[in-house]
Amino acid sequence: MLPAIRNLFDNTAESVDEIIHRLLEGSSFRLEQIVSYGVQSPSDFWYDQDSAEWVALIKGEATLEFEEGSLGLRAGDSLIIPAHVKHKVTHTSKDAVWLAIHYTK
Amino acid sequence: MLPAIRNLFDNTAESVDEIIHRLLEGSSFRLEQIVSYGVQSPSDFWYDQDSAEWVALIKGEATLEFEEGSLGLRAGDSLIIPAHVKHKVTHTSKDAVWLAIHYTK
Repeated sequence: MLPAIRNLFDNTAESVDEIIHRLLEGSSFRLEQIVSYGVQSPSDFWYDQDSAEWVALIKGEATLEFEEGSLGLRAGDSLIIPAHVKHKVTHTSKDAVWLAIHYTK
Repeated sequence: MLPAIRNLFDNTAESVDEIIHRLLEGSSFRLEQIVSYGVQSPSDFWYDQDSAEWVALIKGEATLEFEEGSLGLRAGDSLIIPAHVKHKVTHTSKDAVWLAIHYTK
């Protein structure tokens, strides 16, 4: 049987909430697809995660805020957010889709 | 210091060979960006891998061949290729970029 195909850019569903799809998991990592629908982090909220995260914006535009400043992201941009580096999402376009890997070494 | 950004779609380099960039590695996975430049597998060659692979074509078009048949891929398509499922790349567009995770559970 041929492997099933899942298209990561398809985000035609309408939602008022961010949707996280867990795509894959191993003992030291978890791969997620995150469909943002324009959702932002609450302004008084910071992510402060116990594990490091590799994140790639594969569709759309977004802005990540760190304590040191902001990063504007265009489609294709990827970065590593070390554990306990505080961050939030201050803007996403309606069509924004991310891949994220939470991992330990 | 703000995290460094790497754009995964930028493949403006000219190459006659496929280029594999190792982006991230943990004890149970390895994340790679593969820039194909239109390169195909040799016709008498099959990949036969000891670990499972999640692969996503994030830019361009490509065709994967399995013993059971072919899969035409468009940008955004992702699939899981179990360990020891033989496959080859029979076509890639010049601008094709992949993400691949080799992993064990």
